[in-house]
Amino acid sequence: MVDISDIRAAAARLAPVVRRTPLLESPFLNEIAGRRVLVKAECLQHTGSFKFRGAWSAISALDPEVRARGVFAYSSGNHAQGVAYAAKLHGIPAVILMPADAPKLKLANTAAFGAEVITYDRYSESREEIGARLAEERGLTLVRPYDEPMVIAGQGTTGLELAEQAAEAGVREADVLVCTGGGGLSSGVALALQAEAPGLRVRPVEPEDYDDWKVSLEVGARTPATGGRVSLCDAIVTPAPGEITWPILSRLAGPGIAVSDRECLDAMAQAFERLKIVIEPGGAAALAAALFRPEELSGEAVLCLATGGNVDRAVFAQALEGSGG
Amino acid sequence: MVDISDIRAAAARLAPVVRRTPLLESPFLNEIAGRRVLVKAECLQHTGSFKFRGAWSAISALDPEVRARGVFAYSSGNHAQGVAYAAKLHGIPAVILMPADAPKLKLANTAAFGAEVITYDRYSESREEIGARLAEERGLTLVRPYDEPMVIAGQGTTGLELAEQAAEAGVREADVLVCTGGGGLSSGVALALQAEAPGLRVRPVEPEDYDDWKVSLEVGARTPATGGRVSLCDAIVTPAPGEITWPILSRLAGPGIAVSDRECLDAMAQAFERLKIVIEPGGAAALAAALFRPEELSGEAVLCLATGGNVDRAVFAQALEGSGG
Repeated sequence: MVDISDIRAAAARLAPVVRRTPLLESPFLNEIAGRRVLVKAECLQHTGSFKFRGAWSAISALDPEVRARGVFAYSSGNHAQGVAYAAKLHGIPAVILMPADAPKLKLANTAAFGAEVITYDRYSESREEIGARLAEERGLTLVRPYDEPMVIAGQGTTGLELAEQAAEAGVREADVLVCTGGGGLSSGVALALQAEAPGLRVRPVEPEDYDDWKVSLEVGARTPATGGRVSLCDAIVTPAPGEITWPILSRLAGPGIAVSDRECLDAMAQAFERLKIVIEPGGAAALAAALFRPEELSGEAVLCLATGGNVDRAVFAQALEGSGG
Repeated sequence: MVDISDIRAAAARLAPVVRRTPLLESPFLNEIAGRRVLVKAECLQHTGSFKFRGAWSAISALDPEVRARGVFAYSSGNHAQGVAYAAKLHGIPAVILMPADAPKLKLANTAAFGAEVITYDRYSESREEIGARLAEERGLTLVRPYDEPMVIAGQGTTGLELAEQAAEAGVREADVLVCTGGGGLSSGVALALQAEAPGLRVRPVEPEDYDDWKVSLEVGARTPATGGRVSLCDAIVTPAPGEITWPILSRLAGPGIAVSDRECLDAMAQAFERLKIVIEPGGAAALAAALFRPEELSGEAVLCLATGGNVDRAVFAQALEGSGG
């Protein structure tokens, strides 16, 4: 369905536009974690998250005539911005269906990237019905956020870079912590690492109460999360592993880890202070696990993906206020 | 005194350790500025500022026997951290003389990097006297923050990278805005660009009331700043152009620009929101000029150095609170 050759092809399509994001390290974070912590700052990617990779990969893989009619996407935010910007760079229309209660910055940015934003009430309306109408009436192509081979291939380019950067940093065996919602990034990275750096193993990190990957990997079958309190980690709150991503990660991923919102906020503050990068709660989950769950890890080093930085000022200020731990 | 061959030699010494910091761009910032704004995120350098480059360059250039006895530095902060960390990586002692009222994060970090920190009252004590005693009694070598050829050469490596990255981004003629205190970074970058990208011209950016470079370049002679209100831009508050840096910049730099603390805070907020990087007030001066002083610039693109990110949480929160412009 998707394999390393798809990822390499996506990397070739992305090469002229993608940012090669740096792998950062701080002696202060290493001390907190008790091991080396290497953070790939994908928040510095175009549109502030890795999602640009998958969006560009999918749009650039379309037949030119189909592409010219435009694309649409459902998204709580980062995928929307990635699709909107990739469409803008391609000079094609994009329509984004967003929940009306998505973070303001994400709504505003998506519109500012030139996309047509249609909001819906996520408790009463069916986004699939609205989407089906768009496809039929306007000929738009859906870009799925994770259950989409060309999107997974695009996200997997993060793994190709990581394999090279980890080797440069002298790390050949380590867990790779990935903030995980539907599993598109984790799947792509896992496939890339299997081919390029087999000593590196993906482990999904999720918010408490939304730990469907953790539970599914434990029981060996796709299992929905229990859900519960509203999580600050809006970017990675998903109900269950994806259909395409599950078979990939059930084969390649190590055990999942669930972290609290408080741990994510504290990781954001550490990233601010020690790495000088801005990450959003859902983009901080992997770093939170690296720093605050040392007992769930092993080895002398751990790699983390800091997946996004689209956070409202008020939430970031909350992170900086701290909790004393 | 210092030329392009010194900068290339410094680049070779730095190669195994330095981070090649990314050149970032956001369509949102371009729109505010009315031209392309490309930001070299040197806040992502080791120790959170470009100062690591100069410190490593100077220490690695010392005779091994001299180096082994250790180094010392006077600094309000970023230079201190750069020297402390470069000394730590070399496995040699470092003593840092810091004003007792320097930002807490900078004091704490310098000590945490393994340096011995000696504080003094900058209104009543002579740091030069304390330093002279250290040199005599302990054989330590002074690493000056800017009036030091090997430091200027190290900072100039930023310019070598910028020349390459600007060409990759398609920018061959532009002003290069550099947050400027003593002028070490500006001098090194100006020398590097003269050799590698002669269409790029350094312009110093300073805080209002501490615009000694701006005034000096206008009148054609080293002129002290008037001083005045305490500036948030502690990293670049200096009394007058340096002795070594002045002849370089008086020959190579374009006109200076002075910006307000409020403009720096607003630039910090924009960098947070659009680039996902953390910059301190003194490290935001160049971006502030790019965004908020378009009438003082010309051309279709401007390059900025975001020189440092060592900012206390309270000051960053102040930036996020905003002023409405």
